[in-house]
Amino acid sequence: MHPFRAYISEYTSLADQDWKLIADCLESCSYPKGTTLLLEGKICRKLYFLEQGLLRYCVNRDGKDVTKYFTEPPYCFTSQRSFSQMLPAQESIVALEDSYVWEMSREDAFRLLEVSPSWNTFVRQLIQEVQHYTELILDDLQNYTAEERYIRMMQERDSLLGKVPLKHLASYLGIAPQSLSRIRKRFYEQGRNLT
Amino acid sequence: MHPFRAYISEYTSLADQDWKLIADCLESCSYPKGTTLLLEGKICRKLYFLEQGLLRYCVNRDGKDVTKYFTEPPYCFTSQRSFSQMLPAQESIVALEDSYVWEMSREDAFRLLEVSPSWNTFVRQLIQEVQHYTELILDDLQNYTAEERYIRMMQERDSLLGKVPLKHLASYLGIAPQSLSRIRKRFYEQGRNLT
Repeated sequence: MHPFRAYISEYTSLADQDWKLIADCLESCSYPKGTTLLLEGKICRKLYFLEQGLLRYCVNRDGKDVTKYFTEPPYCFTSQRSFSQMLPAQESIVALEDSYVWEMSREDAFRLLEVSPSWNTFVRQLIQEVQHYTELILDDLQNYTAEERYIRMMQERDSLLGKVPLKHLASYLGIAPQSLSRIRKRFYEQGRNLT
Repeated sequence: MHPFRAYISEYTSLADQDWKLIADCLESCSYPKGTTLLLEGKICRKLYFLEQGLLRYCVNRDGKDVTKYFTEPPYCFTSQRSFSQMLPAQESIVALEDSYVWEMSREDAFRLLEVSPSWNTFVRQLIQEVQHYTELILDDLQNYTAEERYIRMMQERDSLLGKVPLKHLASYLGIAPQSLSRIRKRFYEQGRNLT
């Protein structure tokens, strides 16, 4: 099964004819590590499905590169506000690893809303899911220190940590790279003491 | 015009017959100040439209009452994940002032998705809007200190500050009430020096 079909099917039932309509709108693209898929300030005119690779959402804050999220496959993504309202994107999306992506134009994504109830349900549930993840990150920030959040990432997204450069991880946690180095050192020393 | 019709019309065009379908599902309710509309852990089975009043989303974190958001009218709200997936709500919703609300059952809200394209478009755009606001709060937390965030609230949501008890405002900003008192004192002293 196509990985995007499998992904949609986790949200809603998808008849063959609905999948055909969707598949006809997809284009496959490869982005080598370091490529900028979307540049902050530009209008995002595509809906993407990440099949392989790793992405970073980031913003330029007074000349400083700040990481907002990391996106791992399988995941359907875009710059939501820019995509839905044709506004300049408030973030860049950059490939942290060689990434393999399926793309759909904005026009097709909106046209499908009119003709496919399954697509309509999928899109609504997807936005809800994104909203839920954003709330979880917010909850983390409101309730835990950078050190606690790093430990939670170790526990829940361990595979991610090995792939992300320290500087991006530090900016995601809202701390200086030096502070993250200290936290990591302390964590590993405590870990050794426990064994 | 009914305030909920006016609110929906800001998101999408709404024909008379679509509004009639929606209006038939609405029930008006009054919640005196201090009423809990939704209790954390219960399933949220209603979609609400706040016409008048003020609400607080909050969670019990290790016995501590933490404020997540304040909701001002006009606003359409629910506990999204609980409402859409019938899961226990991860927050309580409490009236901070006497509040006047229109309510729709979960069954009606989902049934309308099938029969009214306007309702469908409204719901999708509403979830996107909530997602955007959540991102803005996240962005604030990632990039500004509690003092900076308080000053931004003074500038952008001044009318709210006079209505919200200090302890809830402090927990929303993620600081102790005493720290907020110091920030306010410093802010007013600086204000006086500027005049």
